[in-house]
Amino acid sequence: MIKAVLFDLDNTLIDYMKMKETASEEAINAMVDAGLKLSKEKALKKLFQYYKRFGIEDQTIFDKFITDVQGKLDYKILAEGIIAYRKIKGGYLKPYPHTISTLIKLKEKGLKLGIVSDAPRKQAFLRLAESKLTFFFDFVIALEDTGKLKPHKMPFKKAIKILKLKPTEILFVGDNPSRDIKGAKLAGMKTALAKYGQIYKEKGIKADYSLKDLRDLLKVIEKENKKQRL
Amino acid sequence: MIKAVLFDLDNTLIDYMKMKETASEEAINAMVDAGLKLSKEKALKKLFQYYKRFGIEDQTIFDKFITDVQGKLDYKILAEGIIAYRKIKGGYLKPYPHTISTLIKLKEKGLKLGIVSDAPRKQAFLRLAESKLTFFFDFVIALEDTGKLKPHKMPFKKAIKILKLKPTEILFVGDNPSRDIKGAKLAGMKTALAKYGQIYKEKGIKADYSLKDLRDLLKVIEKENKKQRL
Repeated sequence: MIKAVLFDLDNTLIDYMKMKETASEEAINAMVDAGLKLSKEKALKKLFQYYKRFGIEDQTIFDKFITDVQGKLDYKILAEGIIAYRKIKGGYLKPYPHTISTLIKLKEKGLKLGIVSDAPRKQAFLRLAESKLTFFFDFVIALEDTGKLKPHKMPFKKAIKILKLKPTEILFVGDNPSRDIKGAKLAGMKTALAKYGQIYKEKGIKADYSLKDLRDLLKVIEKENKKQRL
Repeated sequence: MIKAVLFDLDNTLIDYMKMKETASEEAINAMVDAGLKLSKEKALKKLFQYYKRFGIEDQTIFDKFITDVQGKLDYKILAEGIIAYRKIKGGYLKPYPHTISTLIKLKEKGLKLGIVSDAPRKQAFLRLAESKLTFFFDFVIALEDTGKLKPHKMPFKKAIKILKLKPTEILFVGDNPSRDIKGAKLAGMKTALAKYGQIYKEKGIKADYSLKDLRDLLKVIEKENKKQRL
């Protein structure tokens, strides 16, 4: 009997990479317009190398990028980039289709809902607020809560402790096989892969279920809970 | 002969306080909605006391405010507040009426334009970018450039040095008599008070001109430069 559903946040509930790509492109356009000494194509490529190098959550990535390209931190270029990025982020950071209606139905069924994210706490809550998802979740486990990234057992253990449930009563939904699915399986939870959000194709780690759309989750839970009642 | 115009930024070119008030009100509404243990009225009053105590530029004012009210930093409340604030800021942070058309006319006349602001550099450039004013200005003097707030002579001296002009060839436009007008007068510049943006009513410091609308500036310059030609 599934009594709780845990979700990864970025690329599972929120189309984070699409926002990141579109916002970064607009930021680069604005920076080039403000005097960045690189073509748009080269600049965008370089910026994504910086994301790879310093991490997608680095909050000073534009500062580093501009300092490197210009030889100093040009605040005119920085500000134009940040403002352009934010304008897109505000519009693009939203849940995948059927997310809110699915979450409402899960609540109706009396399921507990939680977030287990590798994002820093403030960023996770900002993204939830921006996409109007905050109030659906009973708790949010972010990076600072355990200091460990998935698939480390700590974030999963912490969720089990908060829920006071058996791991088999918990379904974990995530887009990343080697982080979300691997970790949840090791913790003894049921798993569903958010295929619609998947960026990394990894073989060898198989989830119990695969979701082409978040609302497929409702069928998964129905199936699981029917099994138990037999 | 006026050859350059220097502007204060907040409440002279940009209606900063109106944005601050409206955005703060929306932020408080969102925070109360997310569980802040205060009524909207009391919370808003308290937040403005915090602005007064820690300064209007303090970037962690919500953190401090929430920690005090809730007894701990609740990230759900913080994130909802920040997102609500940003939504308003994006729409509200714009130039006063006739700003862009006036700046274009000043450029046509061949005048040099600069900003002398007490705001931190990054904030000043973000506000310029947000309000689409960046490219009108030949330079921006922000807090870090001298480390001194107006009416200290340093920011004014720095502007004179950059412009390589006599102080009498420079017109300073600002809303704050005891900071902008006093400082510019001491530096030997001509002065115009942005009455439309004025929050602090101070007597005893009289500007050479008073502007009811930013476009009045064009008449001021015409008058000044006709005087010189006589």
